[in-house]
Amino acid sequence: MSNSKKLFRRCRAQMKDISSLACVGGLLAWDQETMMPPRASPARAEQSGVIAGVIHEKFIDPAMGAMLAELDAHADDLSSSEAAIVRERLRDYRKATTLPLDLVRDMARVASLAQDAWIKARAKSDFAMFAPWLEKTVALKRRQAKAYGYRGHPYDALLDDYEPYMTVAELDPVIDELTQGLVPIAHAITSSSANIDARLLHGHFPEAQQELMCRAIAARMGLDPQASRMDRSAHPFCAGISSPTDVRITIRFDEHEVTKAVSNVMHEGGHALYEQGLPERFVGTPLAESISLGIHESQSRLWENVIGLSLPFMTFLLPLLRTHFPGSFKKVSASQLYRALNRVGAKPIRIESDEVTYNLHIVLRYEIEKALLTGDLKVKELPHVWNDMMKKLLGIRPKDDAHGVLQDTHWASGLFGYFPTYSLGNLYAAQFWNTLTKDIPHIDAKMARGEFAPIRAWLGEHIHRHGRRYTALELIKRVTGTPLHAYHFLNYLKEKYGEIYKIRW
Amino acid sequence: MSNSKKLFRRCRAQMKDISSLACVGGLLAWDQETMMPPRASPARAEQSGVIAGVIHEKFIDPAMGAMLAELDAHADDLSSSEAAIVRERLRDYRKATTLPLDLVRDMARVASLAQDAWIKARAKSDFAMFAPWLEKTVALKRRQAKAYGYRGHPYDALLDDYEPYMTVAELDPVIDELTQGLVPIAHAITSSSANIDARLLHGHFPEAQQELMCRAIAARMGLDPQASRMDRSAHPFCAGISSPTDVRITIRFDEHEVTKAVSNVMHEGGHALYEQGLPERFVGTPLAESISLGIHESQSRLWENVIGLSLPFMTFLLPLLRTHFPGSFKKVSASQLYRALNRVGAKPIRIESDEVTYNLHIVLRYEIEKALLTGDLKVKELPHVWNDMMKKLLGIRPKDDAHGVLQDTHWASGLFGYFPTYSLGNLYAAQFWNTLTKDIPHIDAKMARGEFAPIRAWLGEHIHRHGRRYTALELIKRVTGTPLHAYHFLNYLKEKYGEIYKIRW
Repeated sequence: MSNSKKLFRRCRAQMKDISSLACVGGLLAWDQETMMPPRASPARAEQSGVIAGVIHEKFIDPAMGAMLAELDAHADDLSSSEAAIVRERLRDYRKATTLPLDLVRDMARVASLAQDAWIKARAKSDFAMFAPWLEKTVALKRRQAKAYGYRGHPYDALLDDYEPYMTVAELDPVIDELTQGLVPIAHAITSSSANIDARLLHGHFPEAQQELMCRAIAARMGLDPQASRMDRSAHPFCAGISSPTDVRITIRFDEHEVTKAVSNVMHEGGHALYEQGLPERFVGTPLAESISLGIHESQSRLWENVIGLSLPFMTFLLPLLRTHFPGSFKKVSASQLYRALNRVGAKPIRIESDEVTYNLHIVLRYEIEKALLTGDLKVKELPHVWNDMMKKLLGIRPKDDAHGVLQDTHWASGLFGYFPTYSLGNLYAAQFWNTLTKDIPHIDAKMARGEFAPIRAWLGEHIHRHGRRYTALELIKRVTGTPLHAYHFLNYLKEKYGEIYKIRW
Repeated sequence: MSNSKKLFRRCRAQMKDISSLACVGGLLAWDQETMMPPRASPARAEQSGVIAGVIHEKFIDPAMGAMLAELDAHADDLSSSEAAIVRERLRDYRKATTLPLDLVRDMARVASLAQDAWIKARAKSDFAMFAPWLEKTVALKRRQAKAYGYRGHPYDALLDDYEPYMTVAELDPVIDELTQGLVPIAHAITSSSANIDARLLHGHFPEAQQELMCRAIAARMGLDPQASRMDRSAHPFCAGISSPTDVRITIRFDEHEVTKAVSNVMHEGGHALYEQGLPERFVGTPLAESISLGIHESQSRLWENVIGLSLPFMTFLLPLLRTHFPGSFKKVSASQLYRALNRVGAKPIRIESDEVTYNLHIVLRYEIEKALLTGDLKVKELPHVWNDMMKKLLGIRPKDDAHGVLQDTHWASGLFGYFPTYSLGNLYAAQFWNTLTKDIPHIDAKMARGEFAPIRAWLGEHIHRHGRRYTALELIKRVTGTPLHAYHFLNYLKEKYGEIYKIRW
């Protein structure tokens, strides 16, 4: 064995230990949201803190950094998989060791206090209460961007934490294309006179039956019951405890509207299939990790929206609903269900929005984040700018700050650069779907019969199995043959909602 | 603040981190038995291994050892609680650092292989297949005893891992007293002509209803729902994830015999109340840890047997059974239920035994373990000796090795010195109960009404809140006024079974 191979082997063993500890951290978080008795909160905070400390200590071990740099310099001696593992872990190492300790501590402290301030400010709908904390946060984010370093826009450095390798120079044209195409589409739909009845979604749906149905749907999607779980939590999520052999999703049930749980299970199930599709032989390395939040979100949105809100899916879903809730949905047709679930309306709250208007909420946040970071926008101007942009993009004006600039927890938690990944998820999903439907014949008939195996296999083959081998933009190009563009998503919307709302574009 | 106080503070912070990591290890084990998808086994083994390694590394840190020794030498500068914390943790430190690494590795390796051999040997009921592994195990146990060091019997060193501070010189007289008293009692009962009908225990009891009833019992016992959980697992257990704020028990349900689950919840609930009663202000130190396996078992056996198999308890239980299983137990009286649950019979299998004969199974194992360790007994003689002793103690002879010497997993796992703690639990429980019933007036009437709060409070006050401040024997003396003796337990049996079986002693 060559020296590089030997060194790689040692390095990989250390990676695996760190990865195991990260799995443990994931279990602590999952348990906290699903199982832990409430009085254990302080003890759990200690446990999570100690584990995070142990991980950090091992992660930034200079000996590990030296090994990785040495291996990267002799990447020619390694296989392409090994070289990719070294490239990505060295990138992680450099990012983890770049931030000075005092900045990391300041960010943690301010995030904790800003979170408290935000909760109080939102309750009183008073932006002024939160503004000083947001100013501190923005200042810290500028320091963070500077510490990470960037070539183009300071936002590049922050975006990279969630969508690695992506830059404003690459993202801006796509967001511009999206915005320019989407504003007239959303306007045409929201001002349409088509009458859609969503009352048929409401009723009484016992939780136990909803759970049974969600389990049936998850099984059809292809979640391996030997390697996954489904539980309840206040906020649905997917946790790859030790992907691909232990992936856990949670659902929230609304007794009055069963389709919300269906939407949950499709969304979290989409995330879970990605985690389940990561290659077992590379466990503990970046090749068994997901590329980015955007690519992860593309998987959840593809199942939740592109599949889960399609007409063929209604043909599959309707008998399931009727079986699990005898007496309900008797007189509802697949087409009526489809229309009810795809009702579009401009709403001030992002998380209550439909798949059309949702992205304009993201555009707004993206533009504001960039401007705050460069200083082109001052924190105090925010409520005003927010409301004006809402009017311009969506034609509505929030009734107060709680329904406007104070609605999201992200900025209070210090998450800048996170929002765009939601829309990137939609764009990636539409572009993947465009290729997928060309590759898989009779896709509509298959979905109508609940035959999702070919879709899962396609996603596994083209996306999941690669881990972090390619960047998001490389993968898009490789899989679809073209660079990332918003027009796949815009075309998808036009085709779908043109039919529903009888609009000719 | 004095130097000792400052040093203690530093030392305690490190203890707390180690304790938090131990909590994490506990959660990994709990999750594995209750929640984890099966395919995650290999990943979980890695995670548990890494956490165990991190804990061990921190535990044997020489700087910690030096701090503890320094503090112990200046114990006069500390409060009595602080001094007890230092005394116990220093003891743990010295034990953890005493065994040479090659011995620890050999024991782990042999235990793993011996476990495999035992499973195969038991399946074929062929002791010869297991004998070579038991020989290796005994040799390692001798090395372990020597490495730990001992003054009297080599068994002292092994017993100490489960029942700290206890020695053969202390235990032998108690076990002799127990054996000499118990053999004639067991013989009188098992040869009695009294006819007890246990068929009334059998029926069909849906699991969901059993679970509801067990939750009701746990609540009555006083398990705090804000600080505990109850789940299902193949083998019931209690896990103090982060005692006292997160204590979790598991139950197994037998659809044909609901009283088994009642027995489970009383037993595990008794363990859980101990963990729940540990003092929150000392979390992370030995003063928030249990004394010994024997004392822990005294709490579970007290609830399971002394309370849960008493006549007053039947008065409480019967209405619960009738409510949860309408149609069942209609014609059964409290007295009939009591007699059915207390049917005694000599059986070859320890875990199927009643509270009378059970302890003779333990006596047998204790005598054999000591003799194996000294070399007075050879492994190859074991089946023969086992069967002869069964005949002498219980009047029965196992039909094969699977029902005899091969029935337990303990020796295959390297657990020598563990068995006596089961009987110690029974002896401690009877001795505590003797005092408790003097302190709490109208105990029978209270139990009959399901009023367990005074019992829980008494146990909390006299046992739980002390953590490891006293040794087991010190605690017994302190609480009951007399040293440990078997006659409390023997008297308890005579009184109870004399009445049931119409025997005059």
